[in-house]
Amino acid sequence: MTLILSNEDVEKLLTMPDCIDALEEAYLELAEGRGITRQRSDCITPTSYSEDAVYGLKSMDGVVPKLGVSAIRINSDIITNPRVGNSHRRVKVPAAPNDRYVGLVLLFSTHNGEPLAIFPDGVLQHIRVGATNGLGIKYMARENAETVGILGSGWQAETQLTAVCAVRKIRTIRCFSPNRENREAFCVRMSEMLGITVTPVEQPEDAIGGADIVMCGTNSIDPIFYQKWVEPGMHLSSIKKPEIEPAAIRAAQKVVVHTHDTAPMLVVAKGAKFQEATKDTGWNAAQGLDFKKFPTLPELIAGRVTGRDAEEDVTCFLNNLGLGYQFAAAGSVIYQRAVEQGVGHALPTDWFTETVHP
Amino acid sequence: MTLILSNEDVEKLLTMPDCIDALEEAYLELAEGRGITRQRSDCITPTSYSEDAVYGLKSMDGVVPKLGVSAIRINSDIITNPRVGNSHRRVKVPAAPNDRYVGLVLLFSTHNGEPLAIFPDGVLQHIRVGATNGLGIKYMARENAETVGILGSGWQAETQLTAVCAVRKIRTIRCFSPNRENREAFCVRMSEMLGITVTPVEQPEDAIGGADIVMCGTNSIDPIFYQKWVEPGMHLSSIKKPEIEPAAIRAAQKVVVHTHDTAPMLVVAKGAKFQEATKDTGWNAAQGLDFKKFPTLPELIAGRVTGRDAEEDVTCFLNNLGLGYQFAAAGSVIYQRAVEQGVGHALPTDWFTETVHP
Repeated sequence: MTLILSNEDVEKLLTMPDCIDALEEAYLELAEGRGITRQRSDCITPTSYSEDAVYGLKSMDGVVPKLGVSAIRINSDIITNPRVGNSHRRVKVPAAPNDRYVGLVLLFSTHNGEPLAIFPDGVLQHIRVGATNGLGIKYMARENAETVGILGSGWQAETQLTAVCAVRKIRTIRCFSPNRENREAFCVRMSEMLGITVTPVEQPEDAIGGADIVMCGTNSIDPIFYQKWVEPGMHLSSIKKPEIEPAAIRAAQKVVVHTHDTAPMLVVAKGAKFQEATKDTGWNAAQGLDFKKFPTLPELIAGRVTGRDAEEDVTCFLNNLGLGYQFAAAGSVIYQRAVEQGVGHALPTDWFTETVHP
Repeated sequence: MTLILSNEDVEKLLTMPDCIDALEEAYLELAEGRGITRQRSDCITPTSYSEDAVYGLKSMDGVVPKLGVSAIRINSDIITNPRVGNSHRRVKVPAAPNDRYVGLVLLFSTHNGEPLAIFPDGVLQHIRVGATNGLGIKYMARENAETVGILGSGWQAETQLTAVCAVRKIRTIRCFSPNRENREAFCVRMSEMLGITVTPVEQPEDAIGGADIVMCGTNSIDPIFYQKWVEPGMHLSSIKKPEIEPAAIRAAQKVVVHTHDTAPMLVVAKGAKFQEATKDTGWNAAQGLDFKKFPTLPELIAGRVTGRDAEEDVTCFLNNLGLGYQFAAAGSVIYQRAVEQGVGHALPTDWFTETVHP
């Protein structure tokens, strides 16, 4: 049978510790060259949805032979580019029937090629970002780290906190985000979810000062963490490059990035209004930081570099780019649990296979 | 609803003339840059299936905004490399449950992103190769061409004949392939299918001599058509580069290739026994033919080059590489017909979409 799973199923089946374990094993395989992943591809065209929007077909994939799975993640998006201040944001529109987004993961077996499962990417997309930063913390933060300052109160912040609590015995969490209402609601919700008091604070400095681990979990395209806030022994964690000021990155004794993979393979059709939105802010290049020189998380997990040499070291993990590989690794757990628990719509595998030679 | 279709459905829904029409329109879009396609990617790893086999996750995609569709084609293969004479063949093993292959096409709407259909790639894979060579014939063979010589009697030969009969008024077809039993059975079957007598012959020269159109439809990795057989006014048609001897290609006044797309993006894991099978025979490079210099089928259809200038010209079309784009173009017809005729398993589209932001 081939399983069709929902986001609700994935949320129930995949715990953060399980996802962290699967990624850890998969990254070791990746570092050793036994697991592989390919560069993301983006095909962008005009769409009849609106003149200002574009259609995007995005895919990324990866294979983890040790876990017996491969996965391809596909997004079929309507994207608009509203102007926000001086820059343009990319906004996905839930344009599919019933106001829904379209992102799918297809999971296959490397043992016999069969399609194992099809499920939406949304929940896993969030958990894998958290799990990846969680691994950065596991290998780089001080063993005795117990205080977290988090910037952000959206869904990214939620999975970031779940992840840090899975790898360290956290006792204190302070959260800043610009909108008081959001951060207060977030803190109430997360306190209940984690069983640890998450305290809303009025200024970023109040969250960061004295924190063992600083987590940036926002969608900001400008720095939100500055060098002046760096304290000895701190671990800095970011879910995207621009969040941490380059000077703060330079202040760290150890910096590790998620991957050296290059930017997506981009194919843009004539007439697609896409250029403005992809314009590089120049944050990276202008600051002279060469991300290729930092070791990667798989290299760190494989023991080729150390994450921290001394208690007072400042360490920094930058989750710079996602990989299709993550969907395969975590997908293997989701599938295994779904089979064990009898979750999902089980369709005949013959519907997704064929006797005709392809 | 999202439709799950079978190969039998596709065979019933997609006629060769419809496929040719859809590709013709789509190629025009591609030539104008309004349609786009991306390079195929192949991820290759070891598999537990056997020590000599590899696992391959292959994907290619394309978007045709004018037809309102995008498609991604995915193959999840177990591949062995048996030695045949001095070379290695790549053989896909039907290793999935019930001895089946795994190749899928996912079709999406560019209007709102929604998943329209999922179907196996096998039948469409065959029809699109035929339709592509059919377009080569439509634009390059003499208008009054009525005699076809075909080399090969497998499934490729079948769709090649169906295609030529869709674009020219063919009266005579002669077929050569090395195995008498195969070619005779093929001729009986094709005569019935096409309503034209397809005659088996003992030597390739008997099929080719006096033919207006010579079609190569084999899986040979060595030349099967030679310069000495070229006659004035002939159109040569090949489904893969090595079939036609380079000297014969040079003898043509007009040569058109399917695409200038580069070789697939190949990612190979440590330990995957793959190198031997992909070794280039050097056919292309050694003969000094630069395929990038030949115009492409989309350029031909867009009228940027002529396919034939005189009755006595020798013309040659080389279907050198497939494109994910073809699956989108033909997929739009399959989907439209399936909806009209109520064919396929209709599943709730909500199963393949999501409320969570991906």
